Amino acid sequence: MSETLTAQTTDMQAAERVMTRADQLAALSETPDGLTRVYLSPQHLQANRLVGRWMAEAGMQVWQDAVGNICGRYEGEQPGAPALLLGSHLDTVRNAGRYDGMLGVLTAIEVVQALQLQGRRLPLALEIVGFGDEEGTRFGITLLGSRGLTGSWPDDWLAQSDAQGVSVAQAMRDAGLDPAQIHQAARAAGEIVAYLELHIEQGPCLEQAGLALGVVQAINGARRLNCCFTGEAGHAGTVPMQQRKDALAAAAEWMVFVERTAGLQGGNLVATVGDVQCAPGAVNVIPGEVRLSLDIRGPQDAPLAALLQTLLAEAEAIAGRRRLRFDAQAYYHIGATPCDARLQTALEQAVRQVQGRSLSLPSGAGHDAIAMAERWPVGMLFVRCKGGISHHPAEAVATPDVALAIAAYRQVVADLAQGE
Amino acid sequence: MSETLTAQTTDMQAAERVMTRADQLAALSETPDGLTRVYLSPQHLQANRLVGRWMAEAGMQVWQDAVGNICGRYEGEQPGAPALLLGSHLDTVRNAGRYDGMLGVLTAIEVVQALQLQGRRLPLALEIVGFGDEEGTRFGITLLGSRGLTGSWPDDWLAQSDAQGVSVAQAMRDAGLDPAQIHQAARAAGEIVAYLELHIEQGPCLEQAGLALGVVQAINGARRLNCCFTGEAGHAGTVPMQQRKDALAAAAEWMVFVERTAGLQGGNLVATVGDVQCAPGAVNVIPGEVRLSLDIRGPQDAPLAALLQTLLAEAEAIAGRRRLRFDAQAYYHIGATPCDARLQTALEQAVRQVQGRSLSLPSGAGHDAIAMAERWPVGMLFVRCKGGISHHPAEAVATPDVALAIAAYRQVVADLAQGE
Repeated sequence: MSETLTAQTTDMQAAERVMTRADQLAALSETPDGLTRVYLSPQHLQANRLVGRWMAEAGMQVWQDAVGNICGRYEGEQPGAPALLLGSHLDTVRNAGRYDGMLGVLTAIEVVQALQLQGRRLPLALEIVGFGDEEGTRFGITLLGSRGLTGSWPDDWLAQSDAQGVSVAQAMRDAGLDPAQIHQAARAAGEIVAYLELHIEQGPCLEQAGLALGVVQAINGARRLNCCFTGEAGHAGTVPMQQRKDALAAAAEWMVFVERTAGLQGGNLVATVGDVQCAPGAVNVIPGEVRLSLDIRGPQDAPLAALLQTLLAEAEAIAGRRRLRFDAQAYYHIGATPCDARLQTALEQAVRQVQGRSLSLPSGAGHDAIAMAERWPVGMLFVRCKGGISHHPAEAVATPDVALAIAAYRQVVADLAQGE
Repeated sequence: MSETLTAQTTDMQAAERVMTRADQLAALSETPDGLTRVYLSPQHLQANRLVGRWMAEAGMQVWQDAVGNICGRYEGEQPGAPALLLGSHLDTVRNAGRYDGMLGVLTAIEVVQALQLQGRRLPLALEIVGFGDEEGTRFGITLLGSRGLTGSWPDDWLAQSDAQGVSVAQAMRDAGLDPAQIHQAARAAGEIVAYLELHIEQGPCLEQAGLALGVVQAINGARRLNCCFTGEAGHAGTVPMQQRKDALAAAAEWMVFVERTAGLQGGNLVATVGDVQCAPGAVNVIPGEVRLSLDIRGPQDAPLAALLQTLLAEAEAIAGRRRLRFDAQAYYHIGATPCDARLQTALEQAVRQVQGRSLSLPSGAGHDAIAMAERWPVGMLFVRCKGGISHHPAEAVATPDVALAIAAYRQVVADLAQGE
């Protein structure tokens, strides 16, 4: 058997182990039907213990940090060397899929496991982190795990409560953690050289391109607005078309513009009107007021801001032409997180090596890498998921795709650790 | 004082009496704030007594018929002559205006009152009817009064119940009527030569045209449908614009087409999407399913049917282009009711005589004349109402407009009664 064939066989075995372990983690759920595992729950602590055992089996030194992340370290050629950090999260949304987050942790363990089997050390240490909270399911605040490592927990987080009125501080104490010690989770900038995260795409681009793997160029920035057209309600039978101030007709004209403009803009910009509410909302009454949500996202802040301006200007113009009023209130704004150029190049090389070509794409969803990018260079590798479906029990990845992902992950880690 | 000036003075006095009487009737309400007077309620019976007294003062023979309509007859030159029937309804929607319906009854009384003052008889008898139910507020079935006269009550109406579970039959008994005798309300075709109804416009056309009066060409036919675009829900951040099956974007494209097509069609066609519901309806989810109501109306059945066909074909085309599904279910269909050509001509002549020119317009709302047209020629005279507002406490008419209306009504009644 050639060395390549051996490696492929090994990657498939590793991928099968990853799939089995994802199933084992999926069993750790607060609900028997459907997977729900939230920050600092008994199931979270069980998952930490299980993942910690797998890390230890891969030859890593294991600890749970001060905010409840499970961490492992595989020393480099020289003990105490700076580390390349690999990771993702172990918490889930309610009624979740079993790969969102977990796949990144389990594949990272396989990367280390392979080195251990070869008895190989790299110039850099490797660390893996299974973050305790990325989704924000329990407390409504997100990225608690990664912002433990960056040392950027806001002061008011400890007082946030879950639906049962349990505060973050109390939940930490209940889990055996000391809220006074959260600063100990923070890592010095020099201890880590870069952060890599493997994640399912949660979108359909790789599937559409017929590729298992892709490299993230940026995690999209996002803006959300509540918009409203105000016209005049009227009798659907007695007011002629030319005399109407139909708020829904205005909204429809704008929605067509929103879709077309975002589509023509290119640059991976997306714009979505996700909800519309009509008042009074009766079959025989011309709508007098229509409220709409607007969500726009893109991998670069400037084009996103320009798109928003264009959309709002057109809404005003439509309202003006129709003698209506338009109002919009922005209530959510997060900047784009560009991935590190050198890490992207390294990831692309590794991806090309295992699947022939690479695809560069934005991440429409948020990730731990957003927080990590505040302190370290970040890179992300995306794995195709079936139908682009995520946050749903039907979330699925193919075992051969996972094998390819492990191969690319092993490759990029080796390249980066050698290059230092 | 010239005869014309005398007549104008008299018309203003009559109009002021109409306004006072409308206020008196508005006090007969089941709710102290806002006018609500429903079929066979104590307030309905009180209104009948009051209107009956006014009819008697105008020299009419008065009776309440077997379905609770208040009726009056002013004999012609020969006793027992066929009658020209004038009327409208005395019931209201909830929280109603005080002119919708009542104005037609009160102005008709003034027409007769003027003849009585002159001691004048016409070749035809004049009858006035104040219908007990046009709106259908209490039992959810409409035109109970006028369909008593046409003898076309469906068999199942007596068993219909109001919100308190009281059946029509029981409500009739409670009001001193005998459900077994409803057929006695029906009038023989030969007893009546035509039906005229004066009504507020309930729309803005006369106000826009700067005219107090207009002549109805037809009461619009109407069709109502529940429509649905079914696409595919998706993550607002991860699905590129080109790969979406956004049900709301499809619906928006169609709504723009609906508005533009109805507007271009002319012929007084109107089309309204009055409500839209998105599923799942979240800011960060591409809508997978959008339900819309469609209401289209027009004064002629064939163009209305053609418009509907055009709109549905375009919805199918939009759905096809976008790889979505479109469904529509019609649940309400009422044909157009054309007004009698000879009556329209007579009304136009009278209107031109009092205000210089006439405007021909459709009625967007339904009226007792729809039922009456099943048996007799019908004609309708519209009076301008403020801002086109109706079914609302702000419903208003100007006293000088009412004076003009009375003048035109007197004229057309005299013309028609002479012409027979």
